[in-house]
Amino acid sequence: MLARAAADLDVDVTVLTHDVASSAAQVCPAVVAPTLDAATLIDFGRALDVVTFEHELVDRKTLLAAEAAGVSLQPSAECLGRLVDKIAQRELLRTCGVPAPPHVVARDQSELRRVAATTGFPCVVKSSRGGYDGRGVVVIRDPDELDRFAKGPGVGWLVEPLLDIERELAVQIVRGRGGSCQVYPVVETHQVDGICHQVVVPGDVDADVAATAVGYAHALANATGYVGVLAVELFVVGGELVVNELAPRVHNTAHHSIDACTTSQFENHVRAVLGLPLGPVDLIVDAAVMTNVIATTDGTQALAELVPEPGVRLHLYGKAARPGRKVGHVVACGTDVGVLRHTSRRVADALVTSRRRSDPPGNNEHGAPAPPREGENHG
Amino acid sequence: MLARAAADLDVDVTVLTHDVASSAAQVCPAVVAPTLDAATLIDFGRALDVVTFEHELVDRKTLLAAEAAGVSLQPSAECLGRLVDKIAQRELLRTCGVPAPPHVVARDQSELRRVAATTGFPCVVKSSRGGYDGRGVVVIRDPDELDRFAKGPGVGWLVEPLLDIERELAVQIVRGRGGSCQVYPVVETHQVDGICHQVVVPGDVDADVAATAVGYAHALANATGYVGVLAVELFVVGGELVVNELAPRVHNTAHHSIDACTTSQFENHVRAVLGLPLGPVDLIVDAAVMTNVIATTDGTQALAELVPEPGVRLHLYGKAARPGRKVGHVVACGTDVGVLRHTSRRVADALVTSRRRSDPPGNNEHGAPAPPREGENHG
Repeated sequence: MLARAAADLDVDVTVLTHDVASSAAQVCPAVVAPTLDAATLIDFGRALDVVTFEHELVDRKTLLAAEAAGVSLQPSAECLGRLVDKIAQRELLRTCGVPAPPHVVARDQSELRRVAATTGFPCVVKSSRGGYDGRGVVVIRDPDELDRFAKGPGVGWLVEPLLDIERELAVQIVRGRGGSCQVYPVVETHQVDGICHQVVVPGDVDADVAATAVGYAHALANATGYVGVLAVELFVVGGELVVNELAPRVHNTAHHSIDACTTSQFENHVRAVLGLPLGPVDLIVDAAVMTNVIATTDGTQALAELVPEPGVRLHLYGKAARPGRKVGHVVACGTDVGVLRHTSRRVADALVTSRRRSDPPGNNEHGAPAPPREGENHG
Repeated sequence: MLARAAADLDVDVTVLTHDVASSAAQVCPAVVAPTLDAATLIDFGRALDVVTFEHELVDRKTLLAAEAAGVSLQPSAECLGRLVDKIAQRELLRTCGVPAPPHVVARDQSELRRVAATTGFPCVVKSSRGGYDGRGVVVIRDPDELDRFAKGPGVGWLVEPLLDIERELAVQIVRGRGGSCQVYPVVETHQVDGICHQVVVPGDVDADVAATAVGYAHALANATGYVGVLAVELFVVGGELVVNELAPRVHNTAHHSIDACTTSQFENHVRAVLGLPLGPVDLIVDAAVMTNVIATTDGTQALAELVPEPGVRLHLYGKAARPGRKVGHVVACGTDVGVLRHTSRRVADALVTSRRRSDPPGNNEHGAPAPPREGENHG
């Protein structure tokens, strides 16, 4: 989606990926490299005006080495370093005076046991890195679960009490290289099993709540000198707004912007990283609901089920289906949010149930979360 | 744009092109072949579910040979044969009872001299094949001009009196493999130097004129068993509607459908040729104006001029600029057609004037029309 937005501006894109079958490599030239080390990134970026990112599973030292070799990273290595790690994010929030959920940091397994026991059960443990689509977040219900979890790998966690979350919201800010910003209208997000299921815009939030969220986004983008689209995920807890997480990239919670806003998040990210003027982010429809198409099985699309529905646009990613994998999204535009939620869900469900089993099942049939992969982006 | 629409439906596309730098080859796998002969088309089409076309510069015998070898062409060779030649188009219109401009057919140079003299000067001579963007259409003002023109190459012409055209309109019908049809709202087209400059939707036409145009589109698509998007270009002359020309493909006069309609012409063409249900074609905005970005010089885009304008979307094609070449289009959506025409023209002009001269000038600096090329599509 980023590469397409760039193409519409006559901007040439080359993608660096570990997977020749990635969605981006289907629409633009690709350099395929098994790992993203400094030499690879320098080779790749040397001839380009700018290098940007569509996922944050990047190593800070690699980025610093590339910058030292003259590669223009947007956002910068230093900026990304403050955003890619959940522990660093909470530190940033504190510095900016932006409220976060109550949490304690655990740096190793023994600290994790101690901190979790102090927090009490149930508690929520969030891996500092590599989480997306609910991965990297577990609810620990008793000391036995804690024991089992603490024996696993890990490099740092946030431990939080299990909150009574009233609402989940998100806001996306795009910041240009000169510091100008645009903020997309605040959205409501609805999760199922920790995965974003629907995004509703405009979110049903009071003007002062929305203004507070927008203010937080400005504070965070400006404090880091961010360039591009930065997504801010928020909770309403006890009537108060807290920032749960940041995503330094184009984000699933703004996918509706392709169909529902004057300038999509993808075009604005391209504009931002190239130093072009940003486009307006206003809604061009009364309301829109984005529903993710999440595969329930392996297989590929059955075309017969691509029945059109007035006002609903399909965006399928050309990805092989695996249980739990986002393989596309649909956007319903109209006026009545209730109707749009229902319609877009029905279309997304029809796409999933129509997927025929054409590939052998993967290693995932017992429902265990797969490890995060590079390129499982925009989560 | 067709390949993108297909990708959004998880439909795999391979393009057959003579030009590895073509816009389509930038976004999907390409088979590059210098000429489109039967063996090439059969090799290409054998493994595919369906082959369709984005320009009509195809040879009927080649298509028939491919069909005989089992390649599924949509639309069919027979159907295309009735549509790719302006003389055949006029015969089709007559058969369907659809009025055309007054014309006489000339099959060779001596007949051309005779017919033009009888029609009187000025008259308009239209080549039966290979015309687009005003190419293949000349106004002959006197016998000397006729002499010079008749010495050139050619394989058949329509000779018409120079009409006093009140309005130019277009309508696009998409017809599925089962015969179901959808017709996009009638548009007004505005030409400059024979090239489509702007398309305005909804066209400022009486309901009965629009209904007549839609009826013609149905008659022509059904009579030919057409599959896909068929564009019908019309004149209003003396208060009467006549069909000037047909284009058996996705067409420049419906490019606004990406931004302004529920289902774009590109998605509907893909749906039609694959036998999928067609999508609705209603406008999702009050009004839209498409303005072509037509290069005035050689060179590439100066990014600094990509200034966003509220409600205006840019679609640049990644084509090298040559004078007179369409290198993109912009679509302004809103309510006031006068404002939209002005705004979209201003944006399109800014894109053209900002093109810097970076390539050596082509062979075209004396303003002579270049020969038609394959892939100069969607005209």
